[in-house]
This record gives sequence, structure tokens and C-alpha cells, in this order.
Amino acid sequence: MAELVYSLIASAGVDRRQIVGVGVGAPGPMSHEQGLIYRAPNLPGWVNIPLRNLFSGQIGLPVVVENDANAAAFGEFKAGAGRRAHSMVLLTLGTGIGGGLVLNGKLWRGRFDNAGEIGHLIVQVDGRACPCGQRGCLERYASANAVAELLVEAVRAGKPSILADRIRANEALDARDVLDALQQGDALARDTWEHSTRHLAIGIASVQHVLNAQRYILGGGLAKAGAPLLDAVKRHLEQTYWKIAPDCPEVVLAELGSDAGAIGAAMLAREGAPASAAVGSEARGRSS
Amino acid sequence: MAELVYSLIASAGVDRRQIVGVGVGAPGPMSHEQGLIYRAPNLPGWVNIPLRNLFSGQIGLPVVVENDANAAAFGEFKAGAGRRAHSMVLLTLGTGIGGGLVLNGKLWRGRFDNAGEIGHLIVQVDGRACPCGQRGCLERYASANAVAELLVEAVRAGKPSILADRIRANEALDARDVLDALQQGDALARDTWEHSTRHLAIGIASVQHVLNAQRYILGGGLAKAGAPLLDAVKRHLEQTYWKIAPDCPEVVLAELGSDAGAIGAAMLAREGAPASAAVGSEARGRSS
Repeated sequence: MAELVYSLIASAGVDRRQIVGVGVGAPGPMSHEQGLIYRAPNLPGWVNIPLRNLFSGQIGLPVVVENDANAAAFGEFKAGAGRRAHSMVLLTLGTGIGGGLVLNGKLWRGRFDNAGEIGHLIVQVDGRACPCGQRGCLERYASANAVAELLVEAVRAGKPSILADRIRANEALDARDVLDALQQGDALARDTWEHSTRHLAIGIASVQHVLNAQRYILGGGLAKAGAPLLDAVKRHLEQTYWKIAPDCPEVVLAELGSDAGAIGAAMLAREGAPASAAVGSEARGRSS
Repeated sequence: MAELVYSLIASAGVDRRQIVGVGVGAPGPMSHEQGLIYRAPNLPGWVNIPLRNLFSGQIGLPVVVENDANAAAFGEFKAGAGRRAHSMVLLTLGTGIGGGLVLNGKLWRGRFDNAGEIGHLIVQVDGRACPCGQRGCLERYASANAVAELLVEAVRAGKPSILADRIRANEALDARDVLDALQQGDALARDTWEHSTRHLAIGIASVQHVLNAQRYILGGGLAKAGAPLLDAVKRHLEQTYWKIAPDCPEVVLAELGSDAGAIGAAMLAREGAPASAAVGSEARGRSS
């Protein structure tokens, strides 16, 4: 990582003194304030790593470390689908469902730097088991992985689908395959898509009753589906959401794709490091 | 209301010039910014009432109008169970479940002045119908009214209870009766209490995954139960909540009872009126 920073500075021909800081979007759980990764399940051996101080020591520049989904939310807020929103929620629809909140122009991290875990909202008491230990989590119904899993389970339970042969051959399917089958007229694929997008709309309705945000942004792998995702979620939200107050939010697709996290982390670095980051004279007050 | 203000000022012997403003906690839906009550279902004829300007004109003092549950949340934050919390959520457990959020010392009203409607979080897709038009709302399982309703429904469906005779005589029961029966050893009352408090814990877990707040405060009529409520919710929350991150919130009972709204509204008036309130030279910048 440090070598990459040195080579980027060199190739860009930038004077180091012009660089306010370096932002890192990192997997959690982590502490933004301390710049510490508690544990990174996909990076074996990363346990209690003081990433900010290690990295800052290597590159001699202030470093801001942020949860990757938070960084993506801030990226969309500053330069993507969240621009000028009073308040916004990013949902990253992938293996699970992550997310981030930007309220009044500031990233809302919560007390434990763990806000925006929208995927673990419980939408069905005693529902589908989740690896997190809970049951009925939103991401067990509406993540990209869940879309494929739900269809596979239905086929194994005997429902017909044009994907049945591939499933019986133990081929790994993803949400893209379900969407392709839907577009070829497969009824089970259509029912699965409706089921998942309806649950996603119900999750958004629930978050909205808590937060009353202006805008919800759909990102992550599933959002590559584009209009079929957006249209279905908006249609279900309209049916689900209450009519007693005019506070239904806007729902839009993310704009920055997988660059959102890098852009957001850089924007956060520009806003300044937490007060506890003592590297270099550039360190600023807390960014939130 | 205006007469009450005049008589309070007289009886307190306060110089009017010392009064910064008057805070009103009002039922919603409403606009804090505009000081406007859109509709007050329990006050017939109150439709689009510009309460702030009407009231301010009557009393010649700046007025701040706030949603009553928000005002109660701010009261608990300033002078009750929410003191010094980084972030807190009040849940008012009564006919339904209302609530308010105080984040970083500020009331969070949301884009449409309607944040904190915790009772309409959907915890059970296709669950119990709610007058709001949704199905599976938290308040249909865990409000004071729901506790009584669930027990009545179970008795009507044939389950035994020491309350059965009163129910067959069409006597109106409330949550207090259920708690009394539980304390007399009634198994159905105990199951009902467990069911409702478990749903409440699941609602808190869901809100926590979104907000990551430090503290949840249980208020409203049901909170008068005290320890039997608090202990059950904490026990269920421990069983429900994930173990993968140490971000489970504190859960406590409200301290200010039905004074919370008045105290909070007064505190909000002290913080200043919204920018759009142009009554008197005391009007300040927005309070959030």
C-alpha cells in the first residue's frame, strides 16, 4: 500500500506538501477514531491492526481510516447519487447488505463506529438464519447472494425453472442468472425477484420510519441490474409505505460503482483526521 | 393556551423580557420549521393550523413548536435518562410506539420532520395489520395496547387465563392487567409479556444496526411496569443481538414521565426558534 502511494505521487508529479492526507476505506469492524482494524474476516491475521499509524508512519502523511461502506456512502454524497441530499442512506447489495448514512452533510458513524449495517435489520422475526447469529436479517432476503440462494432453494424444493438443470448440476448461480431467467420469462425467477425486491422495499420503509432521510441509494453488485431493480423496489415501496404522511424517500441507483469507497475515503481525508490522529502538522479536528 | 401562559407568567412573578421563548409539544404530523400542524387526529378540526404564528401572536413571545415525541426525547436528553448520551433513542410505549432521536446533542428530525416513528418499523413481513396501512409494524406487537390485545385474542382463541372471565364479559383490559396476571402466575400472561418484550428487543436491535446509538430509553405508559419490562427487554436483546461486534446499546427506563415533553419543548425554545420564525427580535438560528 505504501509503495502504491509513493508510485502514485511520482506518476502524478504532485508535490508531497500539497497532499493534505490519504484516505483508506477498510473492512470492519474497526474504529475510525483510533484508526484501528479490530478484525478483517477476509484478511487472515488482521486482528487489532493500528492501520492508520502503521500506514502513516510508512508514507509520512496523515491518514484517515474509514469503514469501506461508510467511505462509499460519503463518496456518493460528495460526488455521486447523493449530491446535495439533506440526508441519505447508501445500501450496498452484494454478498450481504452493507451501508452508510450521511446526515446533514456528515457521515453518521454512531457510538461504536458501526452505523449503517442495514443488512442486519430484522424484517422477519424467527425468519431465515443469518451467519451473524440473528434470524430474519434483511440481507438473507434481499442481497445479491440471497436472490440466487432463494431461487436455488425453491428449485431444490421442486419448483420448475429454466435454471433447474444448472442447479441440479451444482453450478454456482448468481443474481445475474436469476435476472436473465426472468427476462426469458421464467416464472420462478420472476417470483424470486419480486420476493427479494419487496423485502428490500420493506427494509427501506423501516429505516425511513426511523431516519426520515431524503434519499436511498442502491449500490453494490445487485445494483448493476439497473432499471429492473430500481423499478421493482420503487413499486413495492409505494405499496408498502404508509399514506398517512408525505415522507416517502427518493430511491436512486448509485453512480460511482466500485470507485465510491476510494473517492469517499479521499474526501474524508480532505476533511481532516480525527483529533486523536497526531501525525504531521496537517492533522485537523474531527471530521464528524 | 395563551391564557395559561399569561397566568403562569403572573404567578411566577417573572419579567416577560426574561423569557426567551415558549416551547410547545404538539401531536403530528407537523412541520417544526414552519410551526404548522398538518393534522391532529385527536383534535378535531385541526388541519393545517399555523400554531406557532397564532400562538406567538397571542402571547407576544417567540414560540417553538415541536412534535411531542421529539420534545419528550429532547427532555430526557437534557434532564432525564438521556443525559450525556452521545446518541439516544426514546421509545414511548403507549397506544402505539412513538419516539425521538437525539444524535450528537441535536434532535434529529429528518428530512420531513418525521424521524423516530419506531412503532412503524416492520418486524414481520405480512404480519399483523396496522391502522397506518402497513402490516407487521412493531407497535402491533409491543405497544401497551398490543400487550393487552394479544392476550385478549389468545383467550378468544381458546387459551386459558385467569383473565378469561373478564374478557368474556367484554371488560376492557390494559397492559397493567396482563402484568398483574403474570405476577399471579398466569402462564398466558407470561407468554404474552415474553412475546411483546421480545419483539420490542428485536425492534431495538434493528434500529441499532441502522443508528448505532449509545442508549435506548423506554418511556410511555408501558414503562410504568418498571423492572419487569426493562429486565425482559434486556434479556431478549442479549439473545437477539449479534455477537460479532461489541455495539449493543444501553437500555434504560425514562425518568421524566409525562413531563418529558414539556421540559423538552422548553429546552428547545431556549435553544432558539427555526430561522423562519420571525416573531420578535429574540428569534435565533435554527435549533438543528
